[in-house]
Amino acid sequence: MQGRAGDGGAYNPGVDVPQVVILGGGFGGLAAARALAGAPVKVTLLDRRNHHLFQPLLYQVATAGLSPAEIASPIRRILWRQRNTQVLLAEAVAVDLPARRIALADGSRLAYDALILATGVSHSYFGHEAWAAHAPGLKTLDDALDIRRRVLLAYERAEREGDEERRRQWLTFVVVGAGPTGVEMAGALAEIARHTLARDFRSIDPRTARVVLVEAGPTLLPAYPPDLAAKAVVQLERLGVQVRTGAPVTAIDGAGVQLGAQRLACRTVIWAAGVQAPPLARTLGVPLDRAGRVQVEPDLSLPGHPRVFVVGDLAAVVADGRAVPGVAPAAMQMGRRAADNALRALRGQELLPFRYVDKGSLATIGRSAAVADFGRLRLSGFVAWMAWLSIHIFFLIGFRNRFVVMFTWVWAYLTFQRSARLILGEPTPPDSNAGERLLL
Amino acid sequence: MQGRAGDGGAYNPGVDVPQVVILGGGFGGLAAARALAGAPVKVTLLDRRNHHLFQPLLYQVATAGLSPAEIASPIRRILWRQRNTQVLLAEAVAVDLPARRIALADGSRLAYDALILATGVSHSYFGHEAWAAHAPGLKTLDDALDIRRRVLLAYERAEREGDEERRRQWLTFVVVGAGPTGVEMAGALAEIARHTLARDFRSIDPRTARVVLVEAGPTLLPAYPPDLAAKAVVQLERLGVQVRTGAPVTAIDGAGVQLGAQRLACRTVIWAAGVQAPPLARTLGVPLDRAGRVQVEPDLSLPGHPRVFVVGDLAAVVADGRAVPGVAPAAMQMGRRAADNALRALRGQELLPFRYVDKGSLATIGRSAAVADFGRLRLSGFVAWMAWLSIHIFFLIGFRNRFVVMFTWVWAYLTFQRSARLILGEPTPPDSNAGERLLL
Repeated sequence: MQGRAGDGGAYNPGVDVPQVVILGGGFGGLAAARALAGAPVKVTLLDRRNHHLFQPLLYQVATAGLSPAEIASPIRRILWRQRNTQVLLAEAVAVDLPARRIALADGSRLAYDALILATGVSHSYFGHEAWAAHAPGLKTLDDALDIRRRVLLAYERAEREGDEERRRQWLTFVVVGAGPTGVEMAGALAEIARHTLARDFRSIDPRTARVVLVEAGPTLLPAYPPDLAAKAVVQLERLGVQVRTGAPVTAIDGAGVQLGAQRLACRTVIWAAGVQAPPLARTLGVPLDRAGRVQVEPDLSLPGHPRVFVVGDLAAVVADGRAVPGVAPAAMQMGRRAADNALRALRGQELLPFRYVDKGSLATIGRSAAVADFGRLRLSGFVAWMAWLSIHIFFLIGFRNRFVVMFTWVWAYLTFQRSARLILGEPTPPDSNAGERLLL
Repeated sequence: MQGRAGDGGAYNPGVDVPQVVILGGGFGGLAAARALAGAPVKVTLLDRRNHHLFQPLLYQVATAGLSPAEIASPIRRILWRQRNTQVLLAEAVAVDLPARRIALADGSRLAYDALILATGVSHSYFGHEAWAAHAPGLKTLDDALDIRRRVLLAYERAEREGDEERRRQWLTFVVVGAGPTGVEMAGALAEIARHTLARDFRSIDPRTARVVLVEAGPTLLPAYPPDLAAKAVVQLERLGVQVRTGAPVTAIDGAGVQLGAQRLACRTVIWAAGVQAPPLARTLGVPLDRAGRVQVEPDLSLPGHPRVFVVGDLAAVVADGRAVPGVAPAAMQMGRRAADNALRALRGQELLPFRYVDKGSLATIGRSAAVADFGRLRLSGFVAWMAWLSIHIFFLIGFRNRFVVMFTWVWAYLTFQRSARLILGEPTPPDSNAGERLLL
């Protein structure tokens, strides 16, 4: 890095190129970086991972429908043409707002003139950190591969299990949290059982597997209109998912989930319930909301820090009187506004408020099943699903991915197969109760 | 498993269905299982992993050209139509030949009337087990993902490294062993440097990366005719690979490779040199050859055990006066013969000797570069490469994979891009020396 960044001093345009640092290469961070192409600043995008992830399709990797490379692109590759931008594979651990510096995990520091925080959020187990080992959440590709491994291994264990009750436990899958991710996961798990694996085993019938979607609140998809949420329940039940609303989880261990007085015996639990700010956000020393997000000004800046912006899931922002939802289009819109405001701040201009253009919401449930809320136009079933498919393929980064994903889906639709049914990692299940059945 | 297997006693066709157990779902084991479709036996195929792997393309996963799911298929899926066959995800740890039983890692045992051993071989570091940590070998998908991660991270480290000498170390890649796998790896590593990553970095020029192929013996591709081996050297050097023959490795550590008195400073080493029998083969108590393979009769049976067969890389067999090479077509041919001989043995018939039909050998080197030996017809360069491409795509299991791989390759050929450039696993490099360059 040739340019020198101001270290707490004033920005001096005649001497230095100002440094804009972006933390995070998700939808918000990447949109901000792209919006700064050609601007008279030096942009550094920092991410702990080398790839941008198309998060809306992550549940497809977790359920063996897609491979990691089909929903992820190297950030370097996305930005290689943008000559004022460098990409760093590194982990930020703290932001020193007075000194305008970021501390990295390796002990080095990175100075900025303007900063855009786009790290996203982490899982929250509401203080029950012990649940994490039994109920993995879904935020990264590694999470998705871990879940895929657990789900596929559960069937393998069931196949070798002689005891009927234990076999039922291996064939019971519980998803906690009925937001869009929970609904998608439950639908996909039911499809795996009913179609993908239906005839591959000899001792078990995967079609008897039980998928339970558990939600503490009174309804699933709380961000959707009630009629669409009701239609989602019908579609889920048609796929074979049992939906339990008003059922807060009180305990999770290796053998089941406790819902108050009731116990659900199961071996596989997926956590899609709560989020919290990552540790980095807590180093800012600014107020966080109940979900751990950073409360920002209408122009996305941190209160009292007009050169620091927060975008995406990490930002709690109210636009036109409505809380902006944590979805990819909102993150991209925020990223672009934050980039623009960062340039304005560096030029000493007034910042502009963020306006959210709501293009509608879509949640997929399974094969030919989805709900879509485009304001006055509300769709469900096959039409909503086709809309979901088209929009998701269209927004996938990179032509190749778009093509391969489309082919994979057409193929999966016609054959009921899932292509990524690989169990990677440790070669064999760590323990097994299958002794009796194999001892001839 | 309903049928009862003889436990050391005689086979009784009127009462029981005989059990044929196959250990390993590679080319040999799968060919044996398929050859037993419809036979009046109960087949159990046991593998530590849930997938069959198209091993000849594994180096493409290691070099970010293909995704795991593109070269692997679930064994269950491949065999689901074969009703006399069950697939078990389990690890065999010992064979008890007198009792005709296999001990599994979970403590259970599996009886057989006939046994086909198709486990393949493991890496051998020639007694230097400490080298394994610094120089991973390439046998499994997990190996390939580990190597991919190391290679991509090396460039990331180089990008952040301020010291020129240490940067050179990160940009030096050494492949040990110049058999087909070593040649393919070296060629692919050179392509990544010259094309794939060429313009993605800001502080380094990946085209200056150095790829060294090191071989203890006097020539690379020793199984090929000398003129083709010489052509392979020319093609490798054209890709930018430095070839060092007659250079036995005497030490490997985290900072380089020792070749006698000479030291090659490097951070990434790939091991493609030696193989040995897996621990299971050593429990047989039968003679192994120098490479750790099991010496079998011309009919593939274990000497003195006419119902136990060894196929694939694990078998040292001489057919028509020539040692059969450890390649996929040979393994498949052996698998079919062993299946047939297992049925003959169970019926009390005479066993038939194995005949190897050599269909030729192919080794790819890189973009438009390969060598092919079809007996009298010897090819090199683009024509050999096209032959290699066609044959490998043709033999990939599953239509979908064939199609996606072909598309991925055409795409890669036209764009010089590699689609699977994802670093998975731990989010950030464990340590870094990049402090100075980032401290502004």
